[in-house]
Amino acid sequence: MAQKRFGGTGWIDLSTGINRAPYPLPLLPKEAWTALPTQAATARLLAAAGTAYGSRTPMLAIAGAQAAIQMIPRLSAPARARILAPTYNEHAATLRAAGWQVDEVTTLSALEGADLAVLVHPNNPDGRSYPREELLQLAAQVGRLVVDESFADARPYLSLAHKAGQERLIVLRSFGKFYGLAGVRLGFVLGSDTDISALAEIAGPWPVSGPAIAIGEAALSDRSWAEATVARLRSDTSRLDVLAQSAGWKPLGGTELFRLYDTPDAAATQDRLARHQIWTRMFPYSDRWLRHGLPGQPAEWDRLAAALRD
Amino acid sequence: MAQKRFGGTGWIDLSTGINRAPYPLPLLPKEAWTALPTQAATARLLAAAGTAYGSRTPMLAIAGAQAAIQMIPRLSAPARARILAPTYNEHAATLRAAGWQVDEVTTLSALEGADLAVLVHPNNPDGRSYPREELLQLAAQVGRLVVDESFADARPYLSLAHKAGQERLIVLRSFGKFYGLAGVRLGFVLGSDTDISALAEIAGPWPVSGPAIAIGEAALSDRSWAEATVARLRSDTSRLDVLAQSAGWKPLGGTELFRLYDTPDAAATQDRLARHQIWTRMFPYSDRWLRHGLPGQPAEWDRLAAALRD
Repeated sequence: MAQKRFGGTGWIDLSTGINRAPYPLPLLPKEAWTALPTQAATARLLAAAGTAYGSRTPMLAIAGAQAAIQMIPRLSAPARARILAPTYNEHAATLRAAGWQVDEVTTLSALEGADLAVLVHPNNPDGRSYPREELLQLAAQVGRLVVDESFADARPYLSLAHKAGQERLIVLRSFGKFYGLAGVRLGFVLGSDTDISALAEIAGPWPVSGPAIAIGEAALSDRSWAEATVARLRSDTSRLDVLAQSAGWKPLGGTELFRLYDTPDAAATQDRLARHQIWTRMFPYSDRWLRHGLPGQPAEWDRLAAALRD
Repeated sequence: MAQKRFGGTGWIDLSTGINRAPYPLPLLPKEAWTALPTQAATARLLAAAGTAYGSRTPMLAIAGAQAAIQMIPRLSAPARARILAPTYNEHAATLRAAGWQVDEVTTLSALEGADLAVLVHPNNPDGRSYPREELLQLAAQVGRLVVDESFADARPYLSLAHKAGQERLIVLRSFGKFYGLAGVRLGFVLGSDTDISALAEIAGPWPVSGPAIAIGEAALSDRSWAEATVARLRSDTSRLDVLAQSAGWKPLGGTELFRLYDTPDAAATQDRLARHQIWTRMFPYSDRWLRHGLPGQPAEWDRLAAALRD
């Protein structure tokens, strides 16, 4: 879309929260492509995910966190859901499509009493987060609490993955964002035995591709890459905030994979960057907010700096 | 399982209907892995699939024909389904799990009057097929007709893919079986605008991986590979039937990707082959039927011939 409107080639897509310095692809065994994924391969993937996420709860591998968002409305009969907003819009969309009444609320306490409560943690786009204890207390006050940890890889101290085995709590994890491999389509749902069994039945056999299983196992087992990446992303978010402030934007928060800025005019700012073939994200509910992914290679940082000086 | 029970390595898995001479993997662009799949890439895949399947009806790419089987029970409220049996067991399993009353019937005419009728065409495991005209007449006599063409690639003259745009008819296609790339997880649903839109909403965004989209586009566009493969498979099925008859098994039919044999004792025959690290498929409803995939490379044919002489 942006490419059509502004023309040019070599666009840098900073409109997403996908790490632009991806995990290097491992060599894939031929069977990953040719054969149906085996239970043994899936078990190795889940073991690696359990280590990476610090959790021994029941877990299901799925084709991206989005696949979990599609399934969760079916875990129980439609009733009243509340979502901590603003946030990723697919939670509300899939719940409404499945017949749920959805209220979007702006405080954690307003989620209490819902049949199903959803929060993205840390939140997209503003990075809001809460102490684990508050979320566990909330879980006791709702029919079911879904914590979407799609952007939690760099903040393990926020994660409830290890608590997801208890009833009423479901945790979603995304593989593609932190590992920079969104095309692979891999994510995880962690929850109680009952919920994970029900979700596995909805997903059916072989929901995840052989390459995704092999790549996921390799990447999630590589804790030194993860640690180095967290360190780099933390440093890069500071660097981006400094650049943004020099352009007159006010940092509003975000995560290690994207930043949110208050700009004088989001549409004009987005256009200005687009003329340099850099694409960012606006939101229908704000004419000032701009969400901005992190450049990857040094040349991308140089282009962004030049665009902001223009 | 078989490997544990019989030991040994270098197993030849002939228990599936997956082509053992797969389509050669094309070079994949980096973006297939790193970025979320784009609408443009998906459109190119669907155009290639439309050419391969000889159809211009609405179509949805999904993560394997199995993904469609998981979704179809949700296209309408549960009622009475009939399935032409025996066949692939997941159709009945997913419909029952979604609350449908499922009757398994053995003749095409017995499907008439069902709210939802399902047949695998040509059928798995016996290869039964029917003239297109009979199936179109049947479609007019049921609430909805699902034709699972997972094994129809070598028999385009049987396919109803070009008719799937009409109301009440849905056609499923599998990519992984004929192209020998089951790990990729790719399949298609063809149907009316209304049904395909509803299925797209159930599937959600990005149900298929970037590599699957790129490989699918390349493979489905390569009609000369497909034609050569059909010719080879036809020749190989004859060769396998001759070998089987020399072992005292009676050919009962099948498709170009598997054969069904009547053996004196299916369990003993399966064991005999397993002692040579060749795995075949038995069925709970028959103590004589053995389903047998086609060997790929010459060495696999040699091993099978030696096992049958033993």
